[in-house]
Amino acid sequence: MNSFTISLTKSKGSPLYEQLYRYIAGEIRSGGIRKNEKLPSKKALASHLHISQNTVETAYSMLVQEGYIYARARSGYYVSGISDLIPNPADKKPCSLPEPEPAWRFDFRTNAVDVSSFPFKTWAKLNREVVYQSPELLLPGDARGDASLRESLSKYLHEFRGVKCSAEQLVIGAGIEYLLMMLCSLFEPELSFAVENPGYGKAVSVIKNSGREVKYIPLDREGLRPDLLYESGADIAYITPSHQFPTGIVMPIGRRAELLRWASEIPGRYIIEDDYNSEFNFMGRPIPSVQGIDGGGRVIYMSTFSRILAPSIRIAYMVLPPELAEKYRLKFGHYSSTVSRFEQQTLCRFIDGGYLGRHLNRVKNIYRKRRDALLSILKALPCSDRLRISGDGAGLHLIVEAPPGLAEKIEKNAESERIRVWRLADYYFEEPKREAFILGYASLSAEDMEKAAGLLFAE
Amino acid sequence: MNSFTISLTKSKGSPLYEQLYRYIAGEIRSGGIRKNEKLPSKKALASHLHISQNTVETAYSMLVQEGYIYARARSGYYVSGISDLIPNPADKKPCSLPEPEPAWRFDFRTNAVDVSSFPFKTWAKLNREVVYQSPELLLPGDARGDASLRESLSKYLHEFRGVKCSAEQLVIGAGIEYLLMMLCSLFEPELSFAVENPGYGKAVSVIKNSGREVKYIPLDREGLRPDLLYESGADIAYITPSHQFPTGIVMPIGRRAELLRWASEIPGRYIIEDDYNSEFNFMGRPIPSVQGIDGGGRVIYMSTFSRILAPSIRIAYMVLPPELAEKYRLKFGHYSSTVSRFEQQTLCRFIDGGYLGRHLNRVKNIYRKRRDALLSILKALPCSDRLRISGDGAGLHLIVEAPPGLAEKIEKNAESERIRVWRLADYYFEEPKREAFILGYASLSAEDMEKAAGLLFAE
Repeated sequence: MNSFTISLTKSKGSPLYEQLYRYIAGEIRSGGIRKNEKLPSKKALASHLHISQNTVETAYSMLVQEGYIYARARSGYYVSGISDLIPNPADKKPCSLPEPEPAWRFDFRTNAVDVSSFPFKTWAKLNREVVYQSPELLLPGDARGDASLRESLSKYLHEFRGVKCSAEQLVIGAGIEYLLMMLCSLFEPELSFAVENPGYGKAVSVIKNSGREVKYIPLDREGLRPDLLYESGADIAYITPSHQFPTGIVMPIGRRAELLRWASEIPGRYIIEDDYNSEFNFMGRPIPSVQGIDGGGRVIYMSTFSRILAPSIRIAYMVLPPELAEKYRLKFGHYSSTVSRFEQQTLCRFIDGGYLGRHLNRVKNIYRKRRDALLSILKALPCSDRLRISGDGAGLHLIVEAPPGLAEKIEKNAESERIRVWRLADYYFEEPKREAFILGYASLSAEDMEKAAGLLFAE
Repeated sequence: MNSFTISLTKSKGSPLYEQLYRYIAGEIRSGGIRKNEKLPSKKALASHLHISQNTVETAYSMLVQEGYIYARARSGYYVSGISDLIPNPADKKPCSLPEPEPAWRFDFRTNAVDVSSFPFKTWAKLNREVVYQSPELLLPGDARGDASLRESLSKYLHEFRGVKCSAEQLVIGAGIEYLLMMLCSLFEPELSFAVENPGYGKAVSVIKNSGREVKYIPLDREGLRPDLLYESGADIAYITPSHQFPTGIVMPIGRRAELLRWASEIPGRYIIEDDYNSEFNFMGRPIPSVQGIDGGGRVIYMSTFSRILAPSIRIAYMVLPPELAEKYRLKFGHYSSTVSRFEQQTLCRFIDGGYLGRHLNRVKNIYRKRRDALLSILKALPCSDRLRISGDGAGLHLIVEAPPGLAEKIEKNAESERIRVWRLADYYFEEPKREAFILGYASLSAEDMEKAAGLLFAE
């Protein structure tokens, strides 16, 4: 090949050498210039295209450096053997899109929060301070989360939840699912996990995705049944004692102690205490965490700031018993933390400055009022004497049971009035399933709840 | 039991019922009051302690609700059987602390960035706008990351790296390790992974932690050797073609095409292209990504904002071929995203507002100058003719080889002068190992490099 037919424009935005480089690379890729073909000499091409030799030289050296062409001493430039190596393009199938959600008129889902109560001003102020004042935060931090945040968190957990731990036992991560995934892989693959039935499907799917066997344990009115836990032969029990998800059962201290006894009987048994919603106990002082009454290092305590702050702020944490903390350090100590240090430090200042305590009081009040309003609304309904309410002592949702005929009508109403209400039966992993409705009240005003309940429970 | 000896103080800060509740709960937990013992009647205790019956009633109802005591109709309150259920406390062993790092005088590590070039002002401004203007960002977002960020990122990747993908194929996550962990679990457990030797130990440990077999493939001067890849029988190859870690080899296009041919020959074979440091190519136009020249959906493209922005901002991403994107959606579609939506949206505005492009130009210039300075410094050393420099065409570190006697001296100097220099040999997973030094220059000024090199290479 002696030359190219190519139109180069000086005003095209990209420099001439780049236009030339692109043209030749494209020709080589498409097979327009073949393997081992000789390119025109720099001088010849420069003269042909009325450009400087320097321009050609730059383009050629880019092509050499990127492997498109090679130089032979005292001979010139030749095309590398690449076009025949590149596999033929195949049609790419577009991904299937998730179904769009219908527009709900009222939404009783359980994973909402009251967006308006988020401390925007304080959070933005602290975040800004952190970004401006702390260039060292740009460097990689501790795999388990920043030490200062772990310190603050261990004090907070001690004060609010009776959790006994040092900062060394804490691991901060981007969500309960992430932490549970890491935790699962600290245990031998042949160990099996007991979970509550009905229960938290996301946790179950993380455990299953980690390749571990899952045993479903039915509940009685105090929570997970210890007799069936013993029978199951499981090694690790995942429980939600502060507000069982989704039934709302608050596990009494006696049951907590029974489960601890189970854990202490055989080395290697553990309880994973997912203490979600523990901040929202409306019946008096919250019951101390299982971790707090444990003395034998059998409990892994987990919780998240999703409900306290916002689901989109991805900060969760777990407290590991010392021997698991050591295992974690050995196995994952070189992993990078999954939480941005800016957000870690914003949260740290939020806790240390006393903002978290005040924020908690404020939202707890808001949610208590919403719960009280929902209870009054339900009790004032014409059908109220046929409804059974439970799980309302804590958390941000409650359970409503209705007799079969009425339940069917409620389901129809929900559909026709576009009211989102989740069904308890959907949270069972195995038969038998109890039919009931789950009403989450965190994001609904009293007026909206009144309207929604009127429509939902109309006969 | 007829009454308690307890001193209640009105000025103690906590209300009387709470003091009473705490006292009785403590007594029950410690065994001071035994199982099935009867508590004093409300009236008797109120009169004994000179407090109102309401106060006693509140304390008792808290104790009942929390399972400490129970009521018998027309009889009174009794202690539940809990104290004997709680296992005895065992001594908790303190965790072993990680060794403190020595204070380095000069630090040539490879995972540093130039902290001073971080766009503090813009980032803080955008972050603040996002927090203030977008309350909807508090709600849970898409498992794969916000659609708007995935859109912006797919455009950015197309423009800067020739990556061909739709937003549907992108997954945003808190770091390469997290994404690699998720990716591994999309493949059958019996598939094996080929990795570069020497190579990136963190990736290898994520793959091994996921229970997958790892095969170590030696390099030649173009990168991973295809002949040995074929021989290994591996199904998935993890490579770092833009700047092989740690040797710094830039994989020529011919080798990229050869690896693509390997991947296309048998269904189920994939290439994981970790394109870290691709932004910092100092030799001309960067070579298009392997994903960009692939036409058959055999490449998973991954990268991170750790080096471009800061290691502490945990935003990485991967581009999945359509069938893996679909698999991801089915398996992990209900997981929560691991990246805070505030930071996702800050980054989205940073890209869309053109800040990222400008920032990249700026830091690329800074790093190019540092690289040039380090090269001049090394070339001006008295021992320069005995040093062999490589891997300096891209990335933020280069490789220096010295003959045995000199190499030993350099190692001694590093120790005595407290200069951190990593050794190439440490990045090999198997023999034979090549001895050389890795000099990362991202966080050192020209003056510091000059001083450090003078000390390090002194004979």
